[in-house]
Amino acid sequence: MQEKLTLMIPGPTPVPEKVLKALGKHPIGHRSGEFQALVEKTTSQLKWLHQTTNDVLTITGSGTAAMEAGIINTLSRGDKVICGENGKFGERWTKVAKAYGLNVEVIKSPWGKPLNPESFKQILESDKNKDIRAVIMTHSETSTGVLNNLQAITQHVKEHGNALTIADCVTSLGACNVPMDEWGIDVIASGSQKGYMIPPGLSFLAMSERAWDAQQKSDLPKFYLDLESYRKTAAKNSNPFTPAVNLYFALEEALNMMQEEGLSSIFKRHTRHRDAAQAGMKAIGLQLFAEEGHGSPAITAVAPQNIDAEELRKAVKEKFDILLAGGQDHLKGKVFRIGHLGFVNDRDVLAAVAAIESTLSYLKLNNSVLGSGVAAASKVLNGF
Amino acid sequence: MQEKLTLMIPGPTPVPEKVLKALGKHPIGHRSGEFQALVEKTTSQLKWLHQTTNDVLTITGSGTAAMEAGIINTLSRGDKVICGENGKFGERWTKVAKAYGLNVEVIKSPWGKPLNPESFKQILESDKNKDIRAVIMTHSETSTGVLNNLQAITQHVKEHGNALTIADCVTSLGACNVPMDEWGIDVIASGSQKGYMIPPGLSFLAMSERAWDAQQKSDLPKFYLDLESYRKTAAKNSNPFTPAVNLYFALEEALNMMQEEGLSSIFKRHTRHRDAAQAGMKAIGLQLFAEEGHGSPAITAVAPQNIDAEELRKAVKEKFDILLAGGQDHLKGKVFRIGHLGFVNDRDVLAAVAAIESTLSYLKLNNSVLGSGVAAASKVLNGF
Repeated sequence: MQEKLTLMIPGPTPVPEKVLKALGKHPIGHRSGEFQALVEKTTSQLKWLHQTTNDVLTITGSGTAAMEAGIINTLSRGDKVICGENGKFGERWTKVAKAYGLNVEVIKSPWGKPLNPESFKQILESDKNKDIRAVIMTHSETSTGVLNNLQAITQHVKEHGNALTIADCVTSLGACNVPMDEWGIDVIASGSQKGYMIPPGLSFLAMSERAWDAQQKSDLPKFYLDLESYRKTAAKNSNPFTPAVNLYFALEEALNMMQEEGLSSIFKRHTRHRDAAQAGMKAIGLQLFAEEGHGSPAITAVAPQNIDAEELRKAVKEKFDILLAGGQDHLKGKVFRIGHLGFVNDRDVLAAVAAIESTLSYLKLNNSVLGSGVAAASKVLNGF
Repeated sequence: MQEKLTLMIPGPTPVPEKVLKALGKHPIGHRSGEFQALVEKTTSQLKWLHQTTNDVLTITGSGTAAMEAGIINTLSRGDKVICGENGKFGERWTKVAKAYGLNVEVIKSPWGKPLNPESFKQILESDKNKDIRAVIMTHSETSTGVLNNLQAITQHVKEHGNALTIADCVTSLGACNVPMDEWGIDVIASGSQKGYMIPPGLSFLAMSERAWDAQQKSDLPKFYLDLESYRKTAAKNSNPFTPAVNLYFALEEALNMMQEEGLSSIFKRHTRHRDAAQAGMKAIGLQLFAEEGHGSPAITAVAPQNIDAEELRKAVKEKFDILLAGGQDHLKGKVFRIGHLGFVNDRDVLAAVAAIESTLSYLKLNNSVLGSGVAAASKVLNGF
């Protein structure tokens, strides 16, 4: 049916009506007092979301732009960094680091498995000369639905004493607890079309004082992503370049909604949805791609055995107007992903489970009892 | 009055109601067939606007991001480039070039005067070893309201044979004729919140085949702004990173409107508005900042003698809800700027002239006959 699509991909995520209304307002001047007030307010809201007193900067660009900014503003050519890789996004940060001539050591886990904090601990502890300048990693690995143990790895980085933790929290921020100050994360990058519940186009970068100290020494070339100019203008509630003004309108409205719901309720909702999606998929007899106990609260990746995941995904869209995400890179056709990130309610999750099992039945692909997925998901959603 | 502001700054510019409606639609998946169709359509519309068969890429970011991408994808460390400077934006491209270690020679004109094509000709002709790799310049210098002679300078670059022309057409594209292929411009950067009539957040980069040849040899580090990935995904009507999906909705709608109006009508409208604004200001006795005959069709900078331009600008906003732009850098307080770029009609221009003369009278700052500015502007708008 036209105009009735529900997004259950890990971004863009669904956008509330009042956020869309704010987005569609007439733009205002980005150097006006009115816009400065908006920057001031959203900045304070962003600090609340990051649970930090550090600077949080807003960049017009995708989450990749923010993550790149975090890397190239705190490091210098030849610096030794550790990149954690267990999916497409982890691999991307290695590519960024190498593009700028950093000296990269990779710690890998297979796609679907979490990064092992012990591996980080060992490398950091054996770095007696304190050569390692940063550990770069992804918290919620969007490509596989794995939540990495950012807290434990950050703790090892802190014990090292010299390195920074630079974290891609693009699909974890606003979905689960990421207390920047409490854990001691130095750099957090995120993007608007995720837990923020607004369309893509803005990205966010939180920087600790240690990160700013490192920024003073960084010699990598940059201009649009040079955070010095963002920090300077942020002090005057402004931006170095014309920002995506209308997305700021949307941001304020969405952060208002998030503050009304409260961080703890938001995190509980995401956890409940993850648990319901997982229970539903297991009850249908579909295998989860992420290792048991390491599923992301933002996204559930499913690896149906002997079933073309793309065929299933397309049929679910065709029949039920629910857009699921496909597998990326070598997982294409092998995995589909249910996004339950941002503006998602219990109905969405239940409908997705129901639609998947109904479609499997329609395609004559399932061996389970029709309704068993919904039964299992319902139990989780109802709390028993 | 609340909610009744008219933007007459050089960006963000006013946005048509149907474009705002498109902007406020529910986002769709950026890897969906529906979005691919949108990329395909807007790309072909962008080629129409640039009057080119070259690639035109869309980047989520400001015009500065696109301009930086044009520079850092076609050049290598130590390359000799000529930067034309006669305002804030010309100076910005010198900063970008220097940030990446290019060997910059600057050709300056005072703010308010146009760049002298002869100066470019001389330097290019004397470059017997063909060391110069690019000429970087601003077409419409937004800070001063001067339109530089891009056509003549591009011609000299073509005669040099080895250098590229990299042009900031942020406030000229969609306001006056910029026939990329006919003039032989190699790189054109522009931004959404200008002639495009949509809010900020998207920028555009057109690249000639010669620019792509240079791209193959470029060694400057980049990732988010690496055009290789944009070109590769554009071939599949896609993007390397999550783009600002909702701004694409707006872009399509705005380009539809531009195509209905037609390039030649758009250009005539902007010329008429510039001429009317200039005539109105002169009749009031206010001095134009740009040298006679070199005013930009996008923006008229006014340098009122013995009058605080900021005081006037603020009073016009307060009394008439018309937002004019102030002077930038050392021109703050000395200059105000009337934006007549994008979705601007005769009423807007006439109202701006009327509001300025009314405010001058209110502040007891004018010596001219009240109504003389409107009389002069009207004559231009009426075509006599």
